[in-house]
Amino acid sequence: MPRLWNATIDEHRRTVHAAILDTVAALVGEHGLAGVTMSQIAAEVGIGRATLYKYFPDVEAIVLAWHERQVSEHLAQLTEAAAAAAEPAERLRRVLRTLADLSGGRHQHGTAVHGADPAVSLHRAEHLHKARHRLHALLTEVIEAAAGAGHVRTDVRAADLATFASHAMGAAADLPGTPAARARLVELTLSALHRPADS
Amino acid sequence: MPRLWNATIDEHRRTVHAAILDTVAALVGEHGLAGVTMSQIAAEVGIGRATLYKYFPDVEAIVLAWHERQVSEHLAQLTEAAAAAAEPAERLRRVLRTLADLSGGRHQHGTAVHGADPAVSLHRAEHLHKARHRLHALLTEVIEAAAGAGHVRTDVRAADLATFASHAMGAAADLPGTPAARARLVELTLSALHRPADS
Repeated sequence: MPRLWNATIDEHRRTVHAAILDTVAALVGEHGLAGVTMSQIAAEVGIGRATLYKYFPDVEAIVLAWHERQVSEHLAQLTEAAAAAAEPAERLRRVLRTLADLSGGRHQHGTAVHGADPAVSLHRAEHLHKARHRLHALLTEVIEAAAGAGHVRTDVRAADLATFASHAMGAAADLPGTPAARARLVELTLSALHRPADS
Repeated sequence: MPRLWNATIDEHRRTVHAAILDTVAALVGEHGLAGVTMSQIAAEVGIGRATLYKYFPDVEAIVLAWHERQVSEHLAQLTEAAAAAAEPAERLRRVLRTLADLSGGRHQHGTAVHGADPAVSLHRAEHLHKARHRLHALLTEVIEAAAGAGHVRTDVRAADLATFASHAMGAAADLPGTPAARARLVELTLSALHRPADS
């Protein structure tokens, strides 16, 4: 086959793949994982059931692929946010704000980025572990740089501060979805990162 | 039927009910919701499939009942922790520590207490909303009391501080499961609640 033809097929496959992930995210959000079937997904995407099975073996595999896509997209946005500021303290603030924005957007698809997801079996969820680890590593690096510049406490490990901060940013999902509320959440979290508590 | 006989039947029903919830929590943690059937649950509990259907219509309903039991148990523990200290700042510290301990124990059953759970459809998850709201109201009350005593910042709404703190306590699930790590997490969070950030 000529190269152009292959390119078209590849593009078509990618488009269908993406449409399947979008559809399953919406359906699972609405009906729960147990309420979604492969037939339903195929009908919604507008492809045959047999075609759907050429892409994915079951609903769980699609949910997993959707999760992986989410995490990759979030990672790209965080990397971009980190690159946009040269000053370590400002870089940390921007990365936290991006995390808050991503968490605040969660409601739309009703699925958590962090934490164990009971919709996916533990065995399969291990695939996701690596991607989440990269998010955490990026945040740890940014916190370490800010600590090196004297802006962050050093009495708690940077990795543990990253765990704390990434969970705290998850609060954006349950706060008003306004820029002001998210900015307050970021400053609240930064105030814990900045200084040891008096005692 | 004599009263004693009724009491015995009631007790038997409660025992079976509890065994079903315990079983489904373990099975869903291991296989994911899509990988668990009513037959499997019945076999594991040691009752007939028909009997299981007298208790619950489907797996999702069992997961939901299990969630509700979890939230009630957590609420009882938090209420107890709050009652154990008269001083508002100490009460807040104890409630946060209890939340951290509960979050840290999550790994065992692989399911989050907070946030949307894609295993349960949005429609049914609304039943859970009330119970979570009670957790949040309790924390808000404790924070308000500590603010009244001058221990907590008043530039952010107590309800928003409660949302922040309860998400932050979720970090215990991803930190080392030691008392020291949880104590550090509580102090870190308290330091954000105590004081506005300099600017």
